[in-house]
Amino acid sequence: MERVAFIGLGAMGKPMVANLLAAGWPVSVHNRGPGKEGGLAGPEFRVCDSPADAVRCARMVVTMVPDDAAVEDVTFRADGILAHLAPGGVHVSMSTIGVACSHRLAEAHAAAGRRYVAAPVFGRPDAAAAGALWIVAGGAPDAVESCRPLFETLGQGWFHVAEAPEGANVVKLAGNFTIAAVLETLSEAFALLRKSGLDPRQFLDIVNSTMFRSPIYQAYGLMVLDEAFEPPGFKLRLGLKDVSLVLAAGSDAKVPMPTASLIRDNLLSGVARGMGEVDWCALGRVIADNAGVPPGTR
Amino acid sequence: MERVAFIGLGAMGKPMVANLLAAGWPVSVHNRGPGKEGGLAGPEFRVCDSPADAVRCARMVVTMVPDDAAVEDVTFRADGILAHLAPGGVHVSMSTIGVACSHRLAEAHAAAGRRYVAAPVFGRPDAAAAGALWIVAGGAPDAVESCRPLFETLGQGWFHVAEAPEGANVVKLAGNFTIAAVLETLSEAFALLRKSGLDPRQFLDIVNSTMFRSPIYQAYGLMVLDEAFEPPGFKLRLGLKDVSLVLAAGSDAKVPMPTASLIRDNLLSGVARGMGEVDWCALGRVIADNAGVPPGTR
Amino acid sequence: MERVAFIGLGAMGKPMVANLLAAGWPVSVHNRGPGKEGGLAGPEFRVCDSPADAVRCARMVVTMVPDDAAVEDVTFRADGILAHLAPGGVHVSMSTIGVACSHRLAEAHAAAGRRYVAAPVFGRPDAAAAGALWIVAGGAPDAVESCRPLFETLGQGWFHVAEAPEGANVVKLAGNFTIAAVLETLSEAFALLRKSGLDPRQFLDIVNSTMFRSPIYQAYGLMVLDEAFEPPGFKLRLGLKDVSLVLAAGSDAKVPMPTASLIRDNLLSGVARGMGEVDWCALGRVIADNAGVPPGTR
Amino acid sequence: MERVAFIGLGAMGKPMVANLLAAGWPVSVHNRGPGKEGGLAGPEFRVCDSPADAVRCARMVVTMVPDDAAVEDVTFRADGILAHLAPGGVHVSMSTIGVACSHRLAEAHAAAGRRYVAAPVFGRPDAAAAGALWIVAGGAPDAVESCRPLFETLGQGWFHVAEAPEGANVVKLAGNFTIAAVLETLSEAFALLRKSGLDPRQFLDIVNSTMFRSPIYQAYGLMVLDEAFEPPGFKLRLGLKDVSLVLAAGSDAKVPMPTASLIRDNLLSGVARGMGEVDWCALGRVIADNAGVPPGTR
Repeated sequence: MERVAFIGLGAMGKPMVANLLAAGWPVSVHNRGPGKEGGLAGPEFRVCDSPADAVRCARMVVTMVPDDAAVEDVTFRADGILAHLAPGGVHVSMSTIGVACSHRLAEAHAAAGRRYVAAPVFGRPDAAAAGALWIVAGGAPDAVESCRPLFETLGQGWFHVAEAPEGANVVKLAGNFTIAAVLETLSEAFALLRKSGLDPRQFLDIVNSTMFRSPIYQAYGLMVLDEAFEPPGFKLRLGLKDVSLVLAAGSDAKVPMPTASLIRDNLLSGVARGMGEVDWCALGRVIADNAGVPPGTR
Repeated sequence: MERVAFIGLGAMGKPMVANLLAAGWPVSVHNRGPGKEGGLAGPEFRVCDSPADAVRCARMVVTMVPDDAAVEDVTFRADGILAHLAPGGVHVSMSTIGVACSHRLAEAHAAAGRRYVAAPVFGRPDAAAAGALWIVAGGAPDAVESCRPLFETLGQGWFHVAEAPEGANVVKLAGNFTIAAVLETLSEAFALLRKSGLDPRQFLDIVNSTMFRSPIYQAYGLMVLDEAFEPPGFKLRLGLKDVSLVLAAGSDAKVPMPTASLIRDNLLSGVARGMGEVDWCALGRVIADNAGVPPGTR
Repeated sequence: MERVAFIGLGAMGKPMVANLLAAGWPVSVHNRGPGKEGGLAGPEFRVCDSPADAVRCARMVVTMVPDDAAVEDVTFRADGILAHLAPGGVHVSMSTIGVACSHRLAEAHAAAGRRYVAAPVFGRPDAAAAGALWIVAGGAPDAVESCRPLFETLGQGWFHVAEAPEGANVVKLAGNFTIAAVLETLSEAFALLRKSGLDPRQFLDIVNSTMFRSPIYQAYGLMVLDEAFEPPGFKLRLGLKDVSLVLAAGSDAKVPMPTASLIRDNLLSGVARGMGEVDWCALGRVIADNAGVPPGTR
Repeated sequence: MERVAFIGLGAMGKPMVANLLAAGWPVSVHNRGPGKEGGLAGPEFRVCDSPADAVRCARMVVTMVPDDAAVEDVTFRADGILAHLAPGGVHVSMSTIGVACSHRLAEAHAAAGRRYVAAPVFGRPDAAAAGALWIVAGGAPDAVESCRPLFETLGQGWFHVAEAPEGANVVKLAGNFTIAAVLETLSEAFALLRKSGLDPRQFLDIVNSTMFRSPIYQAYGLMVLDEAFEPPGFKLRLGLKDVSLVLAAGSDAKVPMPTASLIRDNLLSGVARGMGEVDWCALGRVIADNAGVPPGTR
């Protein structure tokens, strides 16, 4: 297997690299902050000081970094990917980033004779560790096809949704929006039930066992009800980032998304009330506070 | 089996009566408009001219009528249920009605020495025909228990959620709200995808096969995408009624439900644009129009 | 001057009666709770035990009571206006009530051979005391014309807006909505300014001195900034009532009013947070709390 | 008087330059597109090919360009303001731009030893022509003070609101938001009145003559009612830009502004429906369409 460079060793990136190493891939890693590689090991594992170092012997580089600014930094800086990736090499951007940012990356790589695949993922860190991510890919067919072995190691399935790479980011953001809407909707319903003297757990059980039959409904509903916001699986301020990015995509495409606007405003209120660093299921707490439901209510 | 009176032979009520007859129940029916009983038959089947007639030989009366006004009419008028149901008899209100209306019925029956069970159902006419409704019951335990044989004939399962009958109406309305939110959310996402040049069916397939795995998501998503709004399975103006009722319940309980407000406003716009009599999945058309997506777009 | 009956001696009604007495009108008053007439006096002043008593010698009866339920009570009860007002007499309903309620009153009076004028007012208790109300009248031209002397005593001006009485209620409710929107809008702007380290009073001064030049903007803006919510000039829960009534009017007319929905949800949250009995300018506190701006911030 | 450079000869900039010339200022102008200077003349008037040319003999440069991108372009490009303005010179940014953009300009100028004043204006082109703008200035006191003669020529008054220049942009954007809210609110009220068979002009007259007494209410209300959207005084897509900028300011300051979100979504819908290039009072048409009120209704 050919060497792959991997930038970003956070909660998602690190287990992804572990899976690559376990599958026998030679991997060169770089993280912007030092010392994140502990526990990763393998005969062909290298820790690099810069993106440039990481891509030196690789024709494929994956980025899994927190946000638009981070991916633009590791791509465009002097010792970044764009200037040092081999001609014909492919940058696989797996972070949840904005549509416009992804488009800028695509254009820059095209102009420089590199290839760019957007491949954001559905799945939390536990899915990353299990190699069970779902990968949504956008890009030229041959470029996406060249990522097949990578995707098969990291995920349980993948989809090619568009030739324009940023199309994959639209799909990913729209998907996150649908999950955010589950949080918002269930939280509003729970507030109504609680203040009506009814059991929100029984409600969740009823609607999910009869109609939704969805593991997402069950899991997110219980996280809201249990108020188990720490440690965060996905921070509220990152949820706010994603919903803001879907609104930006809507703005670019001239599509009003009023539910996304409403959720954004509630998440922003959550940050204003000091909940930015806890799990985004705390959206339920914002909504409960607005309804006068004290914490710890059944 | 004891005779049961059944008021309301609409799209839901008629197949429910057919199931009762098939199971061997003696049934006396009344419908406010004439001639709806065609096709119903049985040795103990009677068609009655008034609620009073219908409840004459029955200790249990089911109402399955369109709205608050209808159930109050058949209950409170001179030849209505309240005045003519046998003392100790039970009124089982299975319509989707408002919480305050249900509470008024409960109080009136209690004052008159009758019993009242609210038992709204989840399920469209096809589920009613298959005896596969899900029934949410509220009321005194013995009153609800007395409905067990009825519920077992009409539904595939039932839940006792509260001793105050109207609690069942809160649960039903909150459940309908969660479905309306699926329509709203998917419609906004679809508009974004369409105007971004992406395939909304593939999107639905991706989010549902990987995350939601929900028959509701699949079914409602496809109805929005197919724009198959006629004939209506559930009319948009009735969806507006239900979302308005959940907002009224929120108002009574002092619970803001901003997503319900937003959906209500979009459904109201649908009625204003002439879509009141088509299926409520036309909410997706309202949202598409707002985004400048013409009808028939992929 | 002919005797007038006046039902309702609250914060608005009492100063209105004082003005009528000062102008020489014979007045018969009734209030649903006892002992509210203290301080009112005059040679032709009578305190009555019921609406029936009050309208006995009057051809015109004014109602100024808190809400729909109150005006329906004093009108429809056995010893109420409808049954006891002289044939041809006129009921002038000056409360802020719902459009549907006003229509019901109009129909009942028409059926009974009485006349009905809806005449809600703009102005707080200080304007009522000064005889400086603005009166919005709806009804048949001759019936409205017959109220001219009354209106000239109570107000500084009046408008005849519709032959259907309830048209006046639409105008009044729409007017209150525009004021609520000023509260909402300024409160959102103030939260932005405060959290940006800027002076919201200077902002108010700038926009009002250059663009709005509106006493309403100035007065309501300062009330929000001063957080002087007690004693209430107009209670938040009554503001919620009015915004709910404008939404009901929109629902009947098939007009979505999303700004009214949003304000309703914020006012409802205010009630849920315990602010129902303070001045409705506390809407600004709800919005500040949502933004993490503590009370007492500049 | 010292020479001033002026970048941007659009609907606002051109009459402002005319006023400067009329008051005797030597002015060097540059516009990004050619041929906009027709009609401007004076003994000390110069037309320049670049920002660099324009600032050559000036210690003060005004920018009045359409948006963030334009002001960043004329500032940061190789032949732009930053590189060529004399040390100690002052850049007066009078466009309505974003808070973050203004902050970037401030930082860049500070680092380069130049001064930066944000001085956005309230007033349409007619006010610019009349020298009747209202100017909101932010910046170091001495830098702002140095602009006094300029401000006195261009405006009828000015305010110093903050030492951080971008504070002036917050005030300007918040002010535009309050105007947008007037459009939204009145449009919703008008739709209710029209569909209730009432005269929206009489309504406007009533609320404005009795309560608001505001020239803004009167003027914007009539523009909505007259549906006189062309030629545009201020294009809807620019209104969308401004409301988006106020939301961005709210996002940075952690302040949810739900009314701004709602208006943004309606303006975005206006663009999607093809109204981006007409006057932003067409927001009223979006709202009327949503309510099923056809164009040309009274």
